Amino acid sequence: MAHSSSSADATFSALERYMQNYFELRKTDYDYGEWFESLYFDLCEFTGRKGKRIRPMLLITGFQTFGGDRPATDPAVLQSAMAMELLHSFILMHDDVIDRSELRRAQPTFHKLAQRRLEPFESSQRHGESIAIVAGDMMFTMAMEAMLDTDFPAELRIKAQKMFLKYAADTGAGEIYDIVLGSRDVSRVTAKEIEEMYYLKTTRYTFEAPCVMGALLAGASEAKIEAIRNFVRPLGLAFQIDNDLLEFRYIDKEMVGFPTDLLEGKKTMLVHETFESLNDVDRSFFQMCLGSERKTESTLVKIYDLIRRSGSLDRLALKTRELFEQSERQLESGDFTEVEAATLRKAIQGVKSQIKVGA
Amino acid sequence: MAHSSSSADATFSALERYMQNYFELRKTDYDYGEWFESLYFDLCEFTGRKGKRIRPMLLITGFQTFGGDRPATDPAVLQSAMAMELLHSFILMHDDVIDRSELRRAQPTFHKLAQRRLEPFESSQRHGESIAIVAGDMMFTMAMEAMLDTDFPAELRIKAQKMFLKYAADTGAGEIYDIVLGSRDVSRVTAKEIEEMYYLKTTRYTFEAPCVMGALLAGASEAKIEAIRNFVRPLGLAFQIDNDLLEFRYIDKEMVGFPTDLLEGKKTMLVHETFESLNDVDRSFFQMCLGSERKTESTLVKIYDLIRRSGSLDRLALKTRELFEQSERQLESGDFTEVEAATLRKAIQGVKSQIKVGA
Repeated sequence: MAHSSSSADATFSALERYMQNYFELRKTDYDYGEWFESLYFDLCEFTGRKGKRIRPMLLITGFQTFGGDRPATDPAVLQSAMAMELLHSFILMHDDVIDRSELRRAQPTFHKLAQRRLEPFESSQRHGESIAIVAGDMMFTMAMEAMLDTDFPAELRIKAQKMFLKYAADTGAGEIYDIVLGSRDVSRVTAKEIEEMYYLKTTRYTFEAPCVMGALLAGASEAKIEAIRNFVRPLGLAFQIDNDLLEFRYIDKEMVGFPTDLLEGKKTMLVHETFESLNDVDRSFFQMCLGSERKTESTLVKIYDLIRRSGSLDRLALKTRELFEQSERQLESGDFTEVEAATLRKAIQGVKSQIKVGA
Repeated sequence: MAHSSSSADATFSALERYMQNYFELRKTDYDYGEWFESLYFDLCEFTGRKGKRIRPMLLITGFQTFGGDRPATDPAVLQSAMAMELLHSFILMHDDVIDRSELRRAQPTFHKLAQRRLEPFESSQRHGESIAIVAGDMMFTMAMEAMLDTDFPAELRIKAQKMFLKYAADTGAGEIYDIVLGSRDVSRVTAKEIEEMYYLKTTRYTFEAPCVMGALLAGASEAKIEAIRNFVRPLGLAFQIDNDLLEFRYIDKEMVGFPTDLLEGKKTMLVHETFESLNDVDRSFFQMCLGSERKTESTLVKIYDLIRRSGSLDRLALKTRELFEQSERQLESGDFTEVEAATLRKAIQGVKSQIKVGA
């Protein structure tokens, strides 16, 4: 156990070194002149910021668990893993523009970095956002190139690239679904729709893509890949709901730290569950508070109280426990060998401990 | 000649049919539920709108001119050509968000289409833009998938995909450069910088990528590909400057149709050339007019008059003629066979006649 966990640490360090080195080596491909140097620096800094590296680490786990015949520190394995992190970086860059977030990993979001690089003038906020849209597109090309440019067999690389593109497209669909549901009144959004949105938007690229692509690169069978899909589906939903709950726990008395999703009127499971369990009077009031375009502190306090009083926090905590158990049952279903199940279980425990999930 | 031009028409029609059919066939891959159907429809409609198809047609020309051993209507050839159009569609979707344009090919831009699909509420403009950012990302995945998913040999497909990604990245760099130069005062932007920006932003993916990728897929030599690069560089710049002039010609007396680039204070060659040739007093005045954030009609009239009076229109028309001659000399340089030179010349004449370039 101690050995195994120190081996995960070693893999993590190898990945970090590989990423840093990659950006340094690839610099010449982005040699557009002096004006681009600071932007390239920002791209590297943004992507390289201390993070959990959940996705690349899961890809390596998938590769090693399902028959990969190379060590975790093989350049092709590390680079495929890194491609997952670059995809994540691209998604964050666009997400932050869409949500107009100012902070990411306790530092400025990419469009804020870009804005600072421009000469100060009236439109620089908007231009910072424009640059982040295009720089995000560039980061997407970097992710795709990293996945393609390894020494795995050509046919396998093409298969992996097509799968990678499909995961990216599905994530996009999930993000759009999130906006579409957000624009609907809470009374006309079902739990099933939110589950599907979470699945597309988060589960697919956070859990399924890394595990499945690792397995694919290792040469796993279609049946095994299907088993992984069944395993990660409840798991991803559990993590996503738990994340909603976790964020809610951090709000202080002045409503500082109120989740962006709630501010924006997004239809999270927490919002839905709360709405469903209120009486008619509270419901209309909740609906009105959620729908208000610019939420004052007093509106936030009201939303906060209704969520608290509705009991939805406890019910959703219970639901995540059930979902975690459901994914555990998938591990024991016989679709996995005991060793495979044990490795996946351990990896998921690792993720849980990193994101401080209570359940 | 009559035969050859009717053969180009036949290829054009085959491409249109292939694109329509492709969207229909691929529908099942985007089967995210009823809510996505209208968006998929919009993606197809936006991309399929009547256009010049310059890029796909040039790819086919490149393929056939440099040794391609398949007919123009071979599915792999048509699909690679289509990939160029899908890339263009993705770039337009993001560009229109960045420029806040409302019309594209005489119809609503994608973010305007998306906005209409949402239930009307306060933020729907912003949400339409958000959806267009993500839907653009999805269109990008479709472009890359189309380029990858043909029956060309696996190694060749990987090579083509990497080149395609590089062209996409360069175009992104060019778009960012455009924003960066736009944020600088006109006095601190050189002609060389604008040329480089035009090259990265337009020439690379409009002229170079299609010709070079067609040649690559046909198995052309590195030397031939280098010759194509030398040929398209002055050509692309000529087309871009001519485009600036053409747009300027369409402004009516009420300044309707004033080019977005000028409204936005972009540093086009026309702006630079005008600035350079004014006397000190007019210069300061021009600088002030350009820099004003919201340009009134009277400001536009002043900019218009200064451009007219400066003589920059004539000088730039002369410059484009020189650039076209320069690319013609490249055709005759001996890097191309006579047949190759003749085919490229004819293809470029076709493009010229389509975009009604005077030079």
